[in-house]
Amino acid sequence: MTQPRVMKDRHLVEETLSTQEILRGNFLHAVRDQVKLPDGSTASREYIIHPGAVMIVPLLLDESGQWQVVLERQFRYPVGQVMIEFPAGKRDSDEDLLVCAQRELREETGYVATEWARAGVLHPVISYSTEYIDIWFARGLTAGERQLDAGEFLDVFTATPEQLLLWCRDGLVTDAKTLTAALWLQNVHSGAWPLDWISIPPSAPFAEVVTVPHESS
Amino acid sequence: MTQPRVMKDRHLVEETLSTQEILRGNFLHAVRDQVKLPDGSTASREYIIHPGAVMIVPLLLDESGQWQVVLERQFRYPVGQVMIEFPAGKRDSDEDLLVCAQRELREETGYVATEWARAGVLHPVISYSTEYIDIWFARGLTAGERQLDAGEFLDVFTATPEQLLLWCRDGLVTDAKTLTAALWLQNVHSGAWPLDWISIPPSAPFAEVVTVPHESS
Repeated sequence: MTQPRVMKDRHLVEETLSTQEILRGNFLHAVRDQVKLPDGSTASREYIIHPGAVMIVPLLLDESGQWQVVLERQFRYPVGQVMIEFPAGKRDSDEDLLVCAQRELREETGYVATEWARAGVLHPVISYSTEYIDIWFARGLTAGERQLDAGEFLDVFTATPEQLLLWCRDGLVTDAKTLTAALWLQNVHSGAWPLDWISIPPSAPFAEVVTVPHESS
Repeated sequence: MTQPRVMKDRHLVEETLSTQEILRGNFLHAVRDQVKLPDGSTASREYIIHPGAVMIVPLLLDESGQWQVVLERQFRYPVGQVMIEFPAGKRDSDEDLLVCAQRELREETGYVATEWARAGVLHPVISYSTEYIDIWFARGLTAGERQLDAGEFLDVFTATPEQLLLWCRDGLVTDAKTLTAALWLQNVHSGAWPLDWISIPPSAPFAEVVTVPHESS
């Protein structure tokens, strides 16, 4: 790009005129903004304010030397179904995203990982939420005790990447973050999308990270 | 599965006790339900009520015999960015999903397609919305005039599947529905996930559909 993005996209960008809170629930927080459209007219935009989240793709090497992924089955009330998902959770205010990923993996599955790699980010619902989900891979897993939140009920299980991809194809996995993780997993697994792994010794404080040379899992 | 799902998942499923509307905005509609958790305790669940949507992956054969996909660039106010996306849109009340896909493709891009294939469905945000997005592929495209809604501003452009996948890897595509479409595209393109195409002659009413033998695009 030779032009600043803001110039190039002037025919698309909307500007905030005012903001008003329209919902402060126990869980949901929504606002309505008045905005100026690219043609100078005005419109309102209603959306959920979200602190952001992380998702973890935990890779486990089984006894036969085959990679498995750690997954969860959880009832999701808004869609009325038990969903197959990768572990994920909301960020605590300004929590570091890797610390959040480590915490959520440990709380929901009990696993602690010695190697981490950030894959990317996804936006689940760009038309009505500020939410983003940071995508992390984890390996070098050691099992431990999980610590579920009060009122949290979920099963933890493992599957091969190939099995997960068949479930995506056949409609048994329909959660968008998990489908996005499957895209990453397929391309990391094939070597097409290499990851940069960070080593975190189990007993080390978070600051002592070591960068591992560029490679795929 | 030998047991009915509801028996197997009793340790996960939540039951509705009551429902209360908490937001009736111009665009967002939210409710708060009191629910009974698997252990018998109660909790509240707040979520957005959504009519459902469709996404279209339009395949265009260019002059050199190379497949291209038709994409959009659109400013998405909640995330404050111009996003690269496949065409998509909300269902009009109980509109047939294929009719909705045909309408959204024509309105947003101007293209009319003679062949359609349903790939699957995704749930963008299972923790706080009922939304689902039905995923359709379209080919046999003829360009025409687009008919954007008032206040809708977006660019239409084409890219190869390979280019789209690089943008997913490099973080230029972060919209979850488009990342999910990229997973489908990669596997349809490789032949791993074949689609069942339906033929719809350009002038035929919707009812006259013809099933095309199983094949990949």
